[in-house]
Amino acid sequence: MKNVAVVLVEPKFSENVGAVARLCANFGVDELIVVNPVNFDLDRAYSMATRVGRQILDRMRVLRELDEALGDFGYVVGTTARVSASRKVYRTLPQAAPEISSLALRNRVALLFGNERWGLTNSQLALCHEVITIPTREGSSMNLSHAVAVVLYQLYILEGKVKLPSRPLARVEELKVMFGYLEKACRALGYIPPGDRDDWMANIREMFLRIRFSRREVKMVIGFCKRVIERLQIEKTRFLSE
Amino acid sequence: MKNVAVVLVEPKFSENVGAVARLCANFGVDELIVVNPVNFDLDRAYSMATRVGRQILDRMRVLRELDEALGDFGYVVGTTARVSASRKVYRTLPQAAPEISSLALRNRVALLFGNERWGLTNSQLALCHEVITIPTREGSSMNLSHAVAVVLYQLYILEGKVKLPSRPLARVEELKVMFGYLEKACRALGYIPPGDRDDWMANIREMFLRIRFSRREVKMVIGFCKRVIERLQIEKTRFLSE
Repeated sequence: MKNVAVVLVEPKFSENVGAVARLCANFGVDELIVVNPVNFDLDRAYSMATRVGRQILDRMRVLRELDEALGDFGYVVGTTARVSASRKVYRTLPQAAPEISSLALRNRVALLFGNERWGLTNSQLALCHEVITIPTREGSSMNLSHAVAVVLYQLYILEGKVKLPSRPLARVEELKVMFGYLEKACRALGYIPPGDRDDWMANIREMFLRIRFSRREVKMVIGFCKRVIERLQIEKTRFLSE
Repeated sequence: MKNVAVVLVEPKFSENVGAVARLCANFGVDELIVVNPVNFDLDRAYSMATRVGRQILDRMRVLRELDEALGDFGYVVGTTARVSASRKVYRTLPQAAPEISSLALRNRVALLFGNERWGLTNSQLALCHEVITIPTREGSSMNLSHAVAVVLYQLYILEGKVKLPSRPLARVEELKVMFGYLEKACRALGYIPPGDRDDWMANIREMFLRIRFSRREVKMVIGFCKRVIERLQIEKTRFLSE
């Protein structure tokens, strides 16, 4: 999210600054700006940033005035826990995120987070193009760094960059063979209720299809069924030949 | 999210337990379980829980064994930062969340989070129906409490939106009985490769956990296994008694 910056306004705890640096690294935000921090202690920040967020912390800008931080951004998003009547424009994070995300394609976007105690003041909120709120239970404000976590996550997943390796599934024709063996095994065991064969196999299919079988797993099941069939045969043969 | 519980496995920092208690309160999760915490210090937890999370912390259960925590859950979700080749089933949080959310309508769901240093171990992951991962930049693991924040947020915003009827699942303790019978049946068939028992059963467990068994289906499988065991016994007895 190279066009997105996190701006912490008057943070009180240096640990939170460090935790946010780590979150920036987690979600690909390169720019962290801190405005007028209270008794800022770099060591405490580093300890929470861990190795992961160290680089972000090293590049972080510390400024005196919010105004001066925002000059070259195209879109400024404020965050608040208090949805008051006086401020008219609110959306929740999930409502606003798609638009913010697409704005960030071609604009620098600043995400503002206020002080741990009272959040952003009205005059700070007035600098924002939009004010969003994270849906939570009423009257239960979030910890600052957790609010940042949630906002960055929500924007990050909309970037649609994440590609997990997906496994190759067994083909339908392979499953068909497997179901054939399953039926044979059930028969060999006398396990299918008489007159009920179709229902029974339909239940079994439905249940097994939920597995999303790999080819290897199909082979495992077939192996199991073959063994059932073979062993019953062997026991029978022994019994008959005695 | 009254059917959802957060389970922290062997957390190292009491502050994280407190922060997670606050998050539970933020997102309407009433149940917090901690398994085998390291040097747990309630005062440090309270300071991070703040007034908001105090009640959750007061009601939190601290247990010795993960096993004992999971018995009466219907669906267990593990979380991991490492997407390795050995574990086959992964979805990302945004992919899995809608299904988890609808399962939670009628089943108790446990969300497992591992130790700050190494996350959940393979044997802990083996207890999960599903393992999810939070999409982040490669090689940048998240802080424990921030991972919890993101998972709870994602489920919370889906709550009330997902209205698919979900089926009541078999409970973990019922599955345990079923796996016992499966193993017995495999043994009776001589189907477990010698010297390979644990791997083998782990594969079978992993595959079957993906089924999302109903109680009726668990009974079907148990019935099948019993039949295998019985029939092999009968054939043997007949053979011997002739």
